[in-house]
Amino acid sequence: MDGRYTNCVASMKEKPLSSLCTPALVVDVDKVKRNALRMIERCQNLGVQLRPHMKTHKTLECADIMTGGSRRCIVVSTLAEACFYADHGFDDILYAYSLPLDKVERCADLSERLDLFQILLDHPHALDELKKRPLRDGRLWHVWLKLDCGNGRAGVLHSQPEAISLAQAIVGTKGVELTGVYAHCGNSYNCRGVEQIQAVAQETTDLTLQFMEKLKASGITCKSSIGSTPSCSHPVKDMGKLSEVHPGNYGFYDVQQSVIGSCTLEEVAVKVLTRVIGHCPHRNQLLIDCGWCGLSLDGAGKLPTGYAVIEGHPDLKLLSMTQEHGHVEPISGPLDYSKFPLGSLLTLIPYHSCATAVMHPVYHVHSEGRLLGKWIPTRGW
Amino acid sequence: MDGRYTNCVASMKEKPLSSLCTPALVVDVDKVKRNALRMIERCQNLGVQLRPHMKTHKTLECADIMTGGSRRCIVVSTLAEACFYADHGFDDILYAYSLPLDKVERCADLSERLDLFQILLDHPHALDELKKRPLRDGRLWHVWLKLDCGNGRAGVLHSQPEAISLAQAIVGTKGVELTGVYAHCGNSYNCRGVEQIQAVAQETTDLTLQFMEKLKASGITCKSSIGSTPSCSHPVKDMGKLSEVHPGNYGFYDVQQSVIGSCTLEEVAVKVLTRVIGHCPHRNQLLIDCGWCGLSLDGAGKLPTGYAVIEGHPDLKLLSMTQEHGHVEPISGPLDYSKFPLGSLLTLIPYHSCATAVMHPVYHVHSEGRLLGKWIPTRGW
Repeated sequence: MDGRYTNCVASMKEKPLSSLCTPALVVDVDKVKRNALRMIERCQNLGVQLRPHMKTHKTLECADIMTGGSRRCIVVSTLAEACFYADHGFDDILYAYSLPLDKVERCADLSERLDLFQILLDHPHALDELKKRPLRDGRLWHVWLKLDCGNGRAGVLHSQPEAISLAQAIVGTKGVELTGVYAHCGNSYNCRGVEQIQAVAQETTDLTLQFMEKLKASGITCKSSIGSTPSCSHPVKDMGKLSEVHPGNYGFYDVQQSVIGSCTLEEVAVKVLTRVIGHCPHRNQLLIDCGWCGLSLDGAGKLPTGYAVIEGHPDLKLLSMTQEHGHVEPISGPLDYSKFPLGSLLTLIPYHSCATAVMHPVYHVHSEGRLLGKWIPTRGW
Repeated sequence: MDGRYTNCVASMKEKPLSSLCTPALVVDVDKVKRNALRMIERCQNLGVQLRPHMKTHKTLECADIMTGGSRRCIVVSTLAEACFYADHGFDDILYAYSLPLDKVERCADLSERLDLFQILLDHPHALDELKKRPLRDGRLWHVWLKLDCGNGRAGVLHSQPEAISLAQAIVGTKGVELTGVYAHCGNSYNCRGVEQIQAVAQETTDLTLQFMEKLKASGITCKSSIGSTPSCSHPVKDMGKLSEVHPGNYGFYDVQQSVIGSCTLEEVAVKVLTRVIGHCPHRNQLLIDCGWCGLSLDGAGKLPTGYAVIEGHPDLKLLSMTQEHGHVEPISGPLDYSKFPLGSLLTLIPYHSCATAVMHPVYHVHSEGRLLGKWIPTRGW
């Protein structure tokens, strides 16, 4: 299942990470596999289907690892991802984004090409658009209803009567199937610690299951799915009553997830290698060759260590970034420049791996610091 | 000179912008040409050589426009850009980034391939690395000395004796030529209005020219160059005494430049098209299909209108973004949802075009709203 990068082993000669030009996104494939396996086992123990989200990495290789090689049952955030995975033999793909009206035809094409392409909606207008575009060969539009269980982004509010009536309208529409009810518990990102995470997981599960009961009372049965990396890293038992869960970030994890309590810093599988390119003793700073082109501005620099954690240097702060430069300074006291000669490597653990990965056209994959090859993500919409 | 995109005219059939799937970065080529021509004329009037910076757009087509079709005399921020332009017939390329010690061999390769590849350094260690890698066929390393005239990022401080001694060391090194002295007046980004911009432009010019005098006193003559889009949009007369200027953002401009006073909002040539994908009356918000994958987080949302200016809607604010969603709300009062039906287009004027362009694998180029084709930027390092 790892053919694409293991094929490269010979040509890469298992060079060390230090052979890379910087900045470079490096992926510890052993950690990715451990993170993925743990999630697979967690879901097996719960008795719930895992549908991993691809939005963090957007690569074939990581998708192989997260699906255990099945290339089935994934979620994507963009149609570009959906097409990329469809073009490479993946199927049972859920495009978990409130159906954009400009992309109905492209969704129809995927629905007609794949065994199982699934979309999501939260508004009657989107259903009207599906009616106008019946699928060929008697195929059905497979539709998930997006429910907002307190996250406050997309979805019909679980408490609104419109949620039930939209489900009924989907069921009542020829050529359309209500496949399931989908809720993203992104509000778990405000949590600190397992107890708070599990409170959000429990609440989202309860609200979703209550909604499923209401549907059942009106004669409707379908699947249910909730997800976020925090809630699925510390699931509550009742999540076993759901059909599916759909976390995504856990393959890589990041500093944000460690602050929330989803993982330890040691479990973070993706880092950015950078080099010292300047000494600025008059400002008590180092310059590094990673700016916001190599590390996302997400997190707004509010960590005690700024925009990232600098591995092995808890006393350093990534204070600010411009396009290709980062300013590093000690949290207190004077910098000992002898420890950071020009050209020396520093390793940044990103605040948000989804946001940092998207800045890199290539990921450099390694096992215990020896390079195995490259993963190339897809981009765009 | 515009062959690459005008070739596409027939196949694109001059469709309107509204035919694009969103989010989409759109470039008004007429504005780019006007912005570029104005900068060319400004430099001609000053009597100074324009060396446009490619870091904002990273495309061949925009480079053609900014160089007036000469494909000569450009600055780049990454070696990936340098290679991209070199591979496509550009020459006289200055890699304006304090020589990274991991990239000396790649720089040597470009120095041996091109008529004129130029590098920049600010530390004796970098010079030592050049000594270790003499160029073939008696070629010279063409080196600019990076001077910090108050910007506070890379460069030797203009006031430090080390600046002169490094220049002397460069001159005294076999196989190396001191081509020029280079200062980036990025501190002009803190300015508001022409008067403040010109004060920084004057100060940087004065400090650079004073440094050139000091060099001359020690028997050294070479070129001089300063630049930033604000200072070159409102140059001071003394900049005519420099050899070159090297602005870059002016091809596109952005909201930040309009706030600084470099341009008007009408001159901004690059926008992000987005569509309304959700109505959230319980939060008095709209959801749009542009998050931080389509618009940079740079600016930290601190504009009165948040992360961008929404064209034609000064009363709306782009409050926050997640990966593929933006939250829009009125600055005051209730939203009139009838004005923003699902699927309707909004146009975001980005806070920082360098940071937003880098999020997009394709730029859609138009003239007066009719699509002409696509520009594909280079990426990476």
